Amino acid sequence: MNTDNQSIDNILTRTSDRCFDVNAGVSETDITAVLHAAMAAPTAVNKRPWHFVVVRDRRLLDRLADALPYCQAARKSPVAIVACGDSRRFLPGDDASLWVQDLSAASENILLAVHALGLGAVWTSVYPHADRMEAVSDILSLPVERKPFNVIPIGHVDRTHKPFDKWDPGCVTYL
Amino acid sequence: MNTDNQSIDNILTRTSDRCFDVNAGVSETDITAVLHAAMAAPTAVNKRPWHFVVVRDRRLLDRLADALPYCQAARKSPVAIVACGDSRRFLPGDDASLWVQDLSAASENILLAVHALGLGAVWTSVYPHADRMEAVSDILSLPVERKPFNVIPIGHVDRTHKPFDKWDPGCVTYL
Repeated sequence: MNTDNQSIDNILTRTSDRCFDVNAGVSETDITAVLHAAMAAPTAVNKRPWHFVVVRDRRLLDRLADALPYCQAARKSPVAIVACGDSRRFLPGDDASLWVQDLSAASENILLAVHALGLGAVWTSVYPHADRMEAVSDILSLPVERKPFNVIPIGHVDRTHKPFDKWDPGCVTYL
Repeated sequence: MNTDNQSIDNILTRTSDRCFDVNAGVSETDITAVLHAAMAAPTAVNKRPWHFVVVRDRRLLDRLADALPYCQAARKSPVAIVACGDSRRFLPGDDASLWVQDLSAASENILLAVHALGLGAVWTSVYPHADRMEAVSDILSLPVERKPFNVIPIGHVDRTHKPFDKWDPGCVTYL
C-alpha cells in the first residue's frame, strides 16, 4: 500500500531488525525520544503500570543474549530496553492481566519510534515464560514488583532490506 | 517533548477520543489504510493470529454500546473495528497467550493510523472478560474461533483538546 502519510508509512515499513552495528552507539537523545513514545501509549484506567530499564552495559547485554532464546540480537546491540510491568499499579480482579495489553501497546510505540529515528529493533518475548522472567530479573537485579515483559535490542542497521507486506483481505469482515 | 519527527509527534499527540460527529462518515479508503497498519504489527513467530470486523451497521454499533461498559463511544461513531484473535493460529503451550500481545500491538497501530488520518478512536476492552466476549460474539455472530479482543470506535472529532504528557522519568532505570 502506498500512502502520502508519513506516520502511516512509518508503521507499514517497520520490520524486525536483529543484526546491528555494535560499534555504532545510540544517542541519549534518541533513547529519551523512544521512552517518551513508550509512555504515550494508552493504558487501562490510565494506570501506566510500567517501568523501562535501559541496558547499555555490555556484560549485561551479553548475559541477556545468553539467557534468552531469540535474543541473540542483544549481543550485537549497543542498547536494549527491557519493558517491565510494575505490579504495584496492576488493576484488581479480572482486570489484573490488562498490564500485558498496556505493555504491548507501549512496546509497539517503542518499535515505531525506533524506526522513525532510522534505527532498528526487535521485540523478544519474556512474559509469560516464568523461566525467562526469572533469568531477566536475576541478571538485572529487578525488585520484585517489576515483572520483565520483553527485551527490545536497538541499534543501527543496514536499511536495504524491504519489509514484507502482511496485508490479507481474508482477515477482514465488513458488517 | 518537542521533536521535528512527524511519526514520533503522531505517537506523542494521540489521545483517546470518545465523542464523535455521528453524521460525518469515515471513508472506505481511510478504513483500508487503518487495517493495513493493523496488519503491519509484529506477531510472535509471524502467526498473525487476527481477524478484524469492521462494523458500520448502526443497529450493531448501538447494541455494542448497550452491551459493553466504557463503550458508549460506539453510539456516536459511524464505524468501529472489532479486533479478534483467531484461535486457529494461536501458538501451542505456554506461548498460547501471545495472541494477546500480538492483538495489542495491532490495536496500537490502529489508534496511531486513525490519529495520523486526522480522525479519533478509543480502545475499549473486551478480553479477558468472558461476559463481554460472549456479548460481542453474540451481537456480531462471530464463529467460535474468533475471540473478540476489543472494540475501537472511530470517527471525526473536535481536535481542540490537547494530549496530556505522561512522561515520568521515575519510570526509567539506566544500567
